[in-house]
Amino acid sequence: MKILAIDSSGLVASAAVTEDEKLLAEYTVNYKKTHSQTLMPMVDEIVRMTELDLSTIDAVAVAGGPGSFTGLRIGSAAAKGLAQALNKPVIGVPTTEAMALELWGYSGLIIPVMDARRRQVYTGIYSFSEAGEGAVRPKCLLEQCALGIEELVAKAGSFGKKAVFTGDGVPVFKEDILRLASFPVSFAPVHLNAQRAGAVAALAAVMFREGNYTSACEHVPVYLRKSQAERERERAEGHAGG
Amino acid sequence: MKILAIDSSGLVASAAVTEDEKLLAEYTVNYKKTHSQTLMPMVDEIVRMTELDLSTIDAVAVAGGPGSFTGLRIGSAAAKGLAQALNKPVIGVPTTEAMALELWGYSGLIIPVMDARRRQVYTGIYSFSEAGEGAVRPKCLLEQCALGIEELVAKAGSFGKKAVFTGDGVPVFKEDILRLASFPVSFAPVHLNAQRAGAVAALAAVMFREGNYTSACEHVPVYLRKSQAERERERAEGHAGG
Repeated sequence: MKILAIDSSGLVASAAVTEDEKLLAEYTVNYKKTHSQTLMPMVDEIVRMTELDLSTIDAVAVAGGPGSFTGLRIGSAAAKGLAQALNKPVIGVPTTEAMALELWGYSGLIIPVMDARRRQVYTGIYSFSEAGEGAVRPKCLLEQCALGIEELVAKAGSFGKKAVFTGDGVPVFKEDILRLASFPVSFAPVHLNAQRAGAVAALAAVMFREGNYTSACEHVPVYLRKSQAERERERAEGHAGG
Repeated sequence: MKILAIDSSGLVASAAVTEDEKLLAEYTVNYKKTHSQTLMPMVDEIVRMTELDLSTIDAVAVAGGPGSFTGLRIGSAAAKGLAQALNKPVIGVPTTEAMALELWGYSGLIIPVMDARRRQVYTGIYSFSEAGEGAVRPKCLLEQCALGIEELVAKAGSFGKKAVFTGDGVPVFKEDILRLASFPVSFAPVHLNAQRAGAVAALAAVMFREGNYTSACEHVPVYLRKSQAERERERAEGHAGG
């Protein structure tokens, strides 16, 4: 099965094509350019390089949240547009689980942390040691959510295991994590510490076999929190009404 | 520190740029086009996309073998040319150790296998559980070498641990590995089962700090075996002399 996967949930823009156990192409950029400028040209680049006939793909996968609001909207809009045009389903992959997949087989807890501002992270807690040897999907010990870093480290501590933290929340909260943690902590190395569309595709293939996909129309990203604009409107309306 | 890394040791062509703990860009293609056609355009693409001033890199890293003879010559020639022009050192990274780095933190043995033809694989045996928590480099239990698959599986079995196999040797030797192994075996998932220049860069950064690099002129790839052309010449000369 062939999957076109994209991830623009965080600082990184990434696109990949997989076919069964083969990563045909992957392109990842973490640079100041906005994803709206980079993502589709990157998809075009790998499609061209692999002479991919887009009509032969089975599904479009996207890191479907949580993440940056604008990033998620760009990724989901791109996925919906491609899937609609190609008449293929969309697989909306949980962003944090795809990040956890990069630490496949790690023997402790895997804790992706994306900076969600306001001293919070988008996070989840995953473990491969309880998922069965060779399983692609980790066991989820904490569903993805927005949490304060103190609360997250306390929850992680309750499992009594070592943990690896990964994601763009690490440079922001590294000192806090080291100060708060009562368990052995490490941080993912440079080639595994940010989103990759290849991991999105790997997870999407499993989800597809599980029947876990939607039509292009039905797909919606998972924001987990209200956007700043929504919060401000509610505050304004609350003030207006009060 | 900023590293430009390339890997054309196997079926994959890959290029990446890292800066400290950040993967600025990575581009990987596993397609029938020859590396001599793809590798430098891919380097150019990521340099352009990240507006990279090549004079600001600290070193050029390359998967320095083992691997395909032609692939290694393309990769090393590209690395030497870039490093010579930029007056930067070359870090020749052991191919199998860079592949092992993709399974960072895995709790058993990591065994990269590249198809070396003639029923052999280029391989090595690595372990993170004995390398110290959080270490980027795994402990090397078997130095990279060319081995028959039977001999490799027997050696792996002597450690009495589970193992994950990765690399383009897996599809070729999967049935043999499963038949021969007396220990639990798994296979790396699609996003971690082939060479990535990001992993080459991650390993190169550690080697650079260890002083483990050469000048562009001094760099040579590690072939491990004689090429088919050399073997045939020796056989012909042996016959001629006999």
